[in-house]
Amino acid sequence: MASNTLSSREFSFLALVTAVSVLLLSRALQGGGEPIYTSLALSGLAYASTYYLIIQTAPSFLKAGLKGKDMSKRVQKEIPECVGAICAIVYLLIVMIFIPFAFYQDIVAATSGGGNRDVVIEVEHVNQGRFLHWFPHNKLASYLSAILSLQSITILGIGDDVFDLRWRHKFFIPFIAAIPLLTVYYVDFGITSVVVPNFLQNILGAELVHLGGAYYVYMGALAIFCPNSINILAGINGIEVMQSIVIALLLIINDSLYLLSAYPPPATESHLFSLSFLLPFLGVSLALFWHNQYPATVFVGDTYCYFAGMVFIVVSILGHFSKTLILLLLPQIFNFVYSAPQLFHLIPCPRHRLPKYNAHRDVLEPSVVQWTAEKQPRAYAAPAMRLLAKLRLLRVTYRQDQDSGREFFDTSSNMTIINLWLVARGPMHERRLAWELSIMQLLVGLLGLVVRHKMALFLFREDNLDLGNAVV
Amino acid sequence: MASNTLSSREFSFLALVTAVSVLLLSRALQGGGEPIYTSLALSGLAYASTYYLIIQTAPSFLKAGLKGKDMSKRVQKEIPECVGAICAIVYLLIVMIFIPFAFYQDIVAATSGGGNRDVVIEVEHVNQGRFLHWFPHNKLASYLSAILSLQSITILGIGDDVFDLRWRHKFFIPFIAAIPLLTVYYVDFGITSVVVPNFLQNILGAELVHLGGAYYVYMGALAIFCPNSINILAGINGIEVMQSIVIALLLIINDSLYLLSAYPPPATESHLFSLSFLLPFLGVSLALFWHNQYPATVFVGDTYCYFAGMVFIVVSILGHFSKTLILLLLPQIFNFVYSAPQLFHLIPCPRHRLPKYNAHRDVLEPSVVQWTAEKQPRAYAAPAMRLLAKLRLLRVTYRQDQDSGREFFDTSSNMTIINLWLVARGPMHERRLAWELSIMQLLVGLLGLVVRHKMALFLFREDNLDLGNAVV
Repeated sequence: MASNTLSSREFSFLALVTAVSVLLLSRALQGGGEPIYTSLALSGLAYASTYYLIIQTAPSFLKAGLKGKDMSKRVQKEIPECVGAICAIVYLLIVMIFIPFAFYQDIVAATSGGGNRDVVIEVEHVNQGRFLHWFPHNKLASYLSAILSLQSITILGIGDDVFDLRWRHKFFIPFIAAIPLLTVYYVDFGITSVVVPNFLQNILGAELVHLGGAYYVYMGALAIFCPNSINILAGINGIEVMQSIVIALLLIINDSLYLLSAYPPPATESHLFSLSFLLPFLGVSLALFWHNQYPATVFVGDTYCYFAGMVFIVVSILGHFSKTLILLLLPQIFNFVYSAPQLFHLIPCPRHRLPKYNAHRDVLEPSVVQWTAEKQPRAYAAPAMRLLAKLRLLRVTYRQDQDSGREFFDTSSNMTIINLWLVARGPMHERRLAWELSIMQLLVGLLGLVVRHKMALFLFREDNLDLGNAVV
Repeated sequence: MASNTLSSREFSFLALVTAVSVLLLSRALQGGGEPIYTSLALSGLAYASTYYLIIQTAPSFLKAGLKGKDMSKRVQKEIPECVGAICAIVYLLIVMIFIPFAFYQDIVAATSGGGNRDVVIEVEHVNQGRFLHWFPHNKLASYLSAILSLQSITILGIGDDVFDLRWRHKFFIPFIAAIPLLTVYYVDFGITSVVVPNFLQNILGAELVHLGGAYYVYMGALAIFCPNSINILAGINGIEVMQSIVIALLLIINDSLYLLSAYPPPATESHLFSLSFLLPFLGVSLALFWHNQYPATVFVGDTYCYFAGMVFIVVSILGHFSKTLILLLLPQIFNFVYSAPQLFHLIPCPRHRLPKYNAHRDVLEPSVVQWTAEKQPRAYAAPAMRLLAKLRLLRVTYRQDQDSGREFFDTSSNMTIINLWLVARGPMHERRLAWELSIMQLLVGLLGLVVRHKMALFLFREDNLDLGNAVV
């Protein structure tokens, strides 16, 4: 971070974004307007203020000791770490400020006396409030519980970044943060039925399966998986933010598909809900991306990864499309499964598995596990590794023992999707690597959405939207 | 912090507290039970886990650079700072876990079919949830917005402790944190009328005054004042926690007065609400007190002061007894008014205004502002200071100029209630000072409660409880 002032180009751009957002916001305030335009305007403000605040506060991060060294550069300098906390805090403020706008139409409907005005006349004489019976408190409670979970993950993420928690402690952080969401889900919806695919309906003899407590375990597991899976697909400049932006974009496309089609109101509402959380997220993430892309001037920190993951969890659980989210997380799922042997120490796992920097050519190469004659893969691991090597899913080099002539493992590439990409595509520049992986994520996700929307009718009798509140 | 393990006496005590709490909790789980007993049990668990976690995590705080030097000791060692964050996080977790218990009776009432079961039969066929029409979502929304504000203040407080913000930035932190509370208040209650005292009713010609927007300004101002006023009544071991515990106890007494009398249900509900936030607060605060009392092994940090203040704000705003809170904050109000000349730099304000440690006698003495012949109080300040000195509200020493024979200010005591207490009562030990101030706070508060409950009927035609939801 060379200076903590905006360049004149940055200033002009941010001023433009702010002006357009304020204009949009003032129109929304005057005319009532659609909440979605307000959300868009607030997202613009979120972008501008995050961009500005990151530049402004970067020196404070360094001063507070929140910094890290960028390993994949010729000159390894220390840059601010945990800057995702800025995104999270701006985001939370924005979604809180959005509350009255989100429920504006409901307030108008309640106070200007729509159809059933007689329902509310027994309001007490000193109660100058809204007509409580009409206000959609269940929607408000969902909204608040979502913010609560996001705030919880922010506190825990910052705690992790400041205290540098151990892996086994961090792992459950997202579960703790999901407690408000799950609690309100329990109190408020309590819907734990899942629609059964057609071909299973005959076997199970039911259209719906009541999962009960198991459904909470499922949601809890998803809440643990999603943030952690983003957190482990990391290590090169920009990759954490870029994958999050791609997933957010795909979810926004998914929401737009519902909103642009003539779906019945309950579905529309739940996807508007989702958009009102995703648009500001896109705003703060784009601002962070600008500072975190190659060559990064700030690091995002665990806070951002957890936070991003929890945003996806919140919208997909409350919007009842957690299966769609899973489709969009396929690269993360692959990365987790592929990483598992190292994460669970079946194969040695070095402290960092980021690609190796080749300073001479300024490219990244796959980083490797170094094997010795004494320390070879365990008996069950060796054949699996040979198989993976044959499938080109692992780069293994062997070494001939001088005396016995036996073949030994010399090196094997670290098992992350990033290293695998370098194994498959050859060494490449850090910026190019981040973009290629993100484009892959985008294409896989788009394919997932096509499958989701075109194929769903083969699996389920009706699309979930016609089924009220059941979780499909 | 000599060791980070529990002594056997500590272990036995915590085990006992935990056992009793678990027993109480299991009974609540079996029999349904009153939410208040569950809250009590969870508060016991909050106490035990905070106590344990503070001991466990103290070394991590030191390692992360969150530490401060205790100035008023013979040996000035560095101890963990910002430990109040532990309290806040445990507290937040506990109040989140409490959500299903708080609304248990409502769920039972809704699902076991009380009176008007016919109201809910049009629930959709796949909706396996609670009967949405019956569930008291407005209560849930208040509860969630309260947690949101408390979480916001925790994030901002931690930010302040980590980044050491400037005074003019910190000042507004509680206002930002109050946004969710005020937003939900706006969306949910919107009650901005205040009952007019009898003697003013003739003048104003109305029983209620509709304050509108001004009421939000009032709540915002209170939200800024309360946490900051606790934060500036600080500087000796234990004082921040002890004043908070006293205020919490007084609020609990106030709630109990309502619950033990035969008041109508709406008031009972709002005071149960208040208790469910105050009991866990007492739990975590007592645990912190044990480590922060003289000689402190940890510092509470701004996080705790803000957090404590926000707990009081939340219960008093949502419980509609903000005027009672003001009565209980009289020592803080006095301290603020008394400090104002220094806070606003009418009189020089040193970086720290904590009392001066007399290592020889092991007592604290009032700390002073040192005046020089060149730098004397401004023309308007000098007579005011002389007057305060005569009223024994300031200790001033004068110095005769050798040549002119004119009298100059030599020193004047720093204008905090802590220094004033030392001026009035003479030098004393740090522990004794903290206890005397806390007992003073308790007595003033008890007097305030008596005034509130005995005198209210002289000022208002009816007690506020009979007036539905109006704010008195």
